[in-house]
Amino acid sequence: MAIITLTTDFGLKDHFVGSLKGTIYKELPDAKIVDISHYISPFNIHECAYVLENSYKNFPEGSIHIVGVDAEPTPENKHIALLIDGHYFIVANNGIIGLITSERKPEKVVEINIPNPDYGSFPVLDVFVKVACHIARGGTLEVVGKPFDALKDLREFTPIVSDNGNKIIGSVIYIDNYGNVVTNIHKKFFDAYRKGRDFELTARSTKISRIHNKYSDIINYDLDKEHRRGAGDLLALFNSAHYIELAIYKSDLNTVGGASTLLGLEFRDTVTVTFE
Amino acid sequence: MAIITLTTDFGLKDHFVGSLKGTIYKELPDAKIVDISHYISPFNIHECAYVLENSYKNFPEGSIHIVGVDAEPTPENKHIALLIDGHYFIVANNGIIGLITSERKPEKVVEINIPNPDYGSFPVLDVFVKVACHIARGGTLEVVGKPFDALKDLREFTPIVSDNGNKIIGSVIYIDNYGNVVTNIHKKFFDAYRKGRDFELTARSTKISRIHNKYSDIINYDLDKEHRRGAGDLLALFNSAHYIELAIYKSDLNTVGGASTLLGLEFRDTVTVTFE
Amino acid sequence: MAIITLTTDFGLKDHFVGSLKGTIYKELPDAKIVDISHYISPFNIHECAYVLENSYKNFPEGSIHIVGVDAEPTPENKHIALLIDGHYFIVANNGIIGLITSERKPEKVVEINIPNPDYGSFPVLDVFVKVACHIARGGTLEVVGKPFDALKDLREFTPIVSDNGNKIIGSVIYIDNYGNVVTNIHKKFFDAYRKGRDFELTARSTKISRIHNKYSDIINYDLDKEHRRGAGDLLALFNSAHYIELAIYKSDLNTVGGASTLLGLEFRDTVTVTFE
Repeated sequence: MAIITLTTDFGLKDHFVGSLKGTIYKELPDAKIVDISHYISPFNIHECAYVLENSYKNFPEGSIHIVGVDAEPTPENKHIALLIDGHYFIVANNGIIGLITSERKPEKVVEINIPNPDYGSFPVLDVFVKVACHIARGGTLEVVGKPFDALKDLREFTPIVSDNGNKIIGSVIYIDNYGNVVTNIHKKFFDAYRKGRDFELTARSTKISRIHNKYSDIINYDLDKEHRRGAGDLLALFNSAHYIELAIYKSDLNTVGGASTLLGLEFRDTVTVTFE
Repeated sequence: MAIITLTTDFGLKDHFVGSLKGTIYKELPDAKIVDISHYISPFNIHECAYVLENSYKNFPEGSIHIVGVDAEPTPENKHIALLIDGHYFIVANNGIIGLITSERKPEKVVEINIPNPDYGSFPVLDVFVKVACHIARGGTLEVVGKPFDALKDLREFTPIVSDNGNKIIGSVIYIDNYGNVVTNIHKKFFDAYRKGRDFELTARSTKISRIHNKYSDIINYDLDKEHRRGAGDLLALFNSAHYIELAIYKSDLNTVGGASTLLGLEFRDTVTVTFE
Repeated sequence: MAIITLTTDFGLKDHFVGSLKGTIYKELPDAKIVDISHYISPFNIHECAYVLENSYKNFPEGSIHIVGVDAEPTPENKHIALLIDGHYFIVANNGIIGLITSERKPEKVVEINIPNPDYGSFPVLDVFVKVACHIARGGTLEVVGKPFDALKDLREFTPIVSDNGNKIIGSVIYIDNYGNVVTNIHKKFFDAYRKGRDFELTARSTKISRIHNKYSDIINYDLDKEHRRGAGDLLALFNSAHYIELAIYKSDLNTVGGASTLLGLEFRDTVTVTFE
């Protein structure tokens, strides 16, 4: 039985997530349901896109991903189901899978059109679960919808290149659990323009000229502990999702604060890279 | 194997929930455990009642619901197990299943009385899990307790009707993840008194004369975006649990705030409906 | 199939936990994964030790515990896997399993040394998951590492005894979901020095001379409700993990506050017991 994942902004206090799972188990007693996140900021399709892009690939092919963020159907926000990169997604057409579709072409996209939907204020339960269970039972997309070709893009995830390829103007797309600041500058993108040159990364008043591959790379273990860099120090790295991230080594939001607060960087703020 | 659900105020940081699950798996290696919520506000039986009532029905019949809120047994808070509407509940008799029992008669209720219970400060693990596993293995309620008929009610969930049926005085029973304000006025209750009349709903200084069925109903898609109502606008609707809810369309507690903060409405505040 | 548990400081918003689970399911479609906690405070090995010690025992023997806190490998923080008390742990050697090893001798410990690890910034996914899946498939520790005997201790969890055994100087090791304050004074330790004597427990300006076994023990049900102690009253008890805990009966952090805020006690603060 295929895995069904859930990514929503429902939070974990209310009955919403429990209701979803109960409904799935009622239809498919052997369902395997996995939570990706229920703490997407309400209606934040950019956060959702980042979380989805960086988790779906870890699941087995054939997994079915229900995305319950900004899912109320309107004339401008249609329900769609698609097969892409071997995975099924059931989402509203609001750009939320724009990061995934920006790299790959969907194999199939349909506008969901199931008979007698119970269109109330909880469409993820009323519609998405029905479609997910249909697919999990081996059903095809064609049965639940009609072909669709107006997939919305996700703006703001692609950095701008200026100054004849000597400057990348990116932005903050995600703040993680440690307060670390994730930019939209992907390693592949960065490398394509860098061409081996030195560079300076600027984020507000912070300037950085080196990007590491893991957090502890800033520590020189040849020095004794008093003379090393360590907890509380700033670094840039390509994070596990391959984006440039500004991090505070071993930051704790409850005590010293994270990169976001210490550098004064928020969602959508600008981060530039200038090549020499 | 029946599903065992968990609804508690334990939160997800401490070891409590992990301990519960480990203990269940030790007794029942094939158990299917589903979290409904672990973020009920501490000891808040009203919140718990609302979450339970609106999620249990989605699960298959025969499911076993462990309720770990205000569960320490005292002479005034006895442990009970009951079968109602095809579902098993293992709870303390503090009114927490009052919303469910207000609509349906239990098929069976017992006061839990298992031999040699280890009555420490974690009765959900010491007692409720044992009872749940017993039921999951096909055991009967009679084996774990003796008949009980002193079920406590849950006050404050039924609105008051005054002025010869021309006025409903309800109250706020829940604030959800979006800050939306849920009242205790159920659609069935509302319709029974409305009898087709116009009405005015009042909550502090807010007055509303229309109740929608979904959030996006306030948007007129015939208008262009600048002239429409939209994100940040107030509406009333019958929510997916069929209660009147005051909501801010696409509210984000982290930015604009939700209905609760914007309208100044908290748990137990009054909401009235006056029919013309 | 053995249970794989997860204890991390990843939080539940980001994609990290979903990615871990997807990766495990890809390797082991029938895996049984259980979350212990993802809300350990970032890099807080003491919190993690307390949560692990008090949950792992509830799981069946043979369970595999992945511990994703402070897990980046460095020359001073090696990856290890061990078998202790019938359970497998996959952790960094930072003292995090110090509470468990302080009571029991590991049956086997290896330094993890898998071929071609993908050592990036997400070692829990790149390394720990591989090792866990290997063990779950019945593999041995010897295959994934070489013998290791330099297990780090966990300081600060053992109280100090002074004044010829007449005084125990302990400290706060954990604040739980209710704001209750857990000390490092275990019932066995306390009893060994008490020898039946009266005592006074002091925490800042608070003095207590009795330790209960459950929260409701402070209530005298022979009195009517107005004359009893009850919600909001302070007590000390041996909690379900057998440590001395200072608690506020039915505390709610959102309203009255918990013992931590009311008594002004934080992680590492001193709590003393003086025997008469």
